[in-house]
Amino acid sequence: MNKDTTFAIVGLGLLGGSYAKGLKEAGYHVYGVARREETITYALEHNYIDEGSIDPALVAKADIIICCLYPSILIKWIEDNKKFFKPSAIISDVSGVKHTIVEPIQEILTNTTNEFIATHPMAGRETSGIEYANTEMFKSANFIIVPTEKNTQHAIDTMWSLAEILAFHHISILSIEEHDRMIGFLSQLTHVIAVSLMNTHDDEKLVDYTGDSFRDLTRIAKINEHMWSELFLYNKEILLDEITKFQESLSDFKETLQTENIDKMKMLFTQSTKRRKKFDK
Amino acid sequence: MNKDTTFAIVGLGLLGGSYAKGLKEAGYHVYGVARREETITYALEHNYIDEGSIDPALVAKADIIICCLYPSILIKWIEDNKKFFKPSAIISDVSGVKHTIVEPIQEILTNTTNEFIATHPMAGRETSGIEYANTEMFKSANFIIVPTEKNTQHAIDTMWSLAEILAFHHISILSIEEHDRMIGFLSQLTHVIAVSLMNTHDDEKLVDYTGDSFRDLTRIAKINEHMWSELFLYNKEILLDEITKFQESLSDFKETLQTENIDKMKMLFTQSTKRRKKFDK
Repeated sequence: MNKDTTFAIVGLGLLGGSYAKGLKEAGYHVYGVARREETITYALEHNYIDEGSIDPALVAKADIIICCLYPSILIKWIEDNKKFFKPSAIISDVSGVKHTIVEPIQEILTNTTNEFIATHPMAGRETSGIEYANTEMFKSANFIIVPTEKNTQHAIDTMWSLAEILAFHHISILSIEEHDRMIGFLSQLTHVIAVSLMNTHDDEKLVDYTGDSFRDLTRIAKINEHMWSELFLYNKEILLDEITKFQESLSDFKETLQTENIDKMKMLFTQSTKRRKKFDK
Repeated sequence: MNKDTTFAIVGLGLLGGSYAKGLKEAGYHVYGVARREETITYALEHNYIDEGSIDPALVAKADIIICCLYPSILIKWIEDNKKFFKPSAIISDVSGVKHTIVEPIQEILTNTTNEFIATHPMAGRETSGIEYANTEMFKSANFIIVPTEKNTQHAIDTMWSLAEILAFHHISILSIEEHDRMIGFLSQLTHVIAVSLMNTHDDEKLVDYTGDSFRDLTRIAKINEHMWSELFLYNKEILLDEITKFQESLSDFKETLQTENIDKMKMLFTQSTKRRKKFDK
């Protein structure tokens, strides 16, 4: 990536703040756009950005614009502010769901010279806000580029370079369908399970007897209700399908126990053990 | 506990081996009974026991006999070998399920002078065998005494002292019903969920995209199929009931997503977050 390339980060929350910090540390010129003046002030004071504003017109100065916004805000923001984009600017996002977002945005940009290329940095924390910005979380995280047939190799290469600059652990390319299926199963279904398990009982006495396995399984039941309700809705059909598949697997196990089918139960344990071992780091 | 008290550990696997090691290190005289000569040899060589045998008659020398056996073997072992017990001997176990085990054993010992007091050390690893014996795992573990109305205060106190000697993190007393409910939810249901989740898909490509939350949630899907199939069967009705309750909670969430009831979804997230925070260490 040419060192003269300039970036605009739109939305300086946990992820946007971390992007800005990482890009500044790597020597790039970074513009920041946020809703609140205090966020701009914080970002400037901590040297996460070179220049900031609550006015989106600032993005006119950037070669690459990365929107770190909630899905519900993202599409409208691009619609409202595409008039400011530099003709050659590449636009990207950080959304955790793609099929309900990417096509509408590419549609909005059809009659412009701008290219929108979707990316998903699989990094995050239980916390939110620029105060928690850190680039360490990228080092163990996946960065996924999710191109459509409308994207150019140049835009894909640019996002690959961005991920390298931010030092993501693993960079890959998935189709929209592959991405949203994978997220539906690995991330969203696991959150549904953890949340549903915590909501099964309300028994504080249990705390005294809780072991690591219960804690590990329910850690993600602590969840940002605004972000995750959006992510679930934007991936609704896929997530519903993944929940159904899990329900079938669970019912199958239940019936195995109900009928005391020991051989099958042992087979299910052996199978889960074998499969899980592949996921060991 | 009087330092002259002698212990017999019956079954020198991961847990039995660790009990023997801990008691020996604390200065007690420990007898070991195992099925295989190699296990006895190993225990003697590593100074986990003072004397060992594959002949259960050895337990005649012990004041406290702790049976570290699978549930299916435990009841029959006591039936077969009660003739060897010293008249004052206290007998205990390490079983993860109680209501299907404790009453039958206390019934077997009705016409003897021996007392059976149930205990559950909530310690274990994914590994098995005396080669993995270690007393470190007790330091973060719960020790639960599960007395019935047939038990004396003396036996309860003796088990409390045993747990202190082995340096368990937390010692408590629960009724059989409380214990098996708690285990059914916190331990068994979580294993059912992890196993069922791993059995939902067989897609090795997912490994590349797996984050910590999926790994944490499925760690216990690596499971000893022999031990856990027994534990589940011995707690069948309670576990089936816990699975049903979880299924209801999961279906409730699914319907919330299906109907796009955002307010309720946020409430479910807020509730799970609040409840889970109580479980933070």
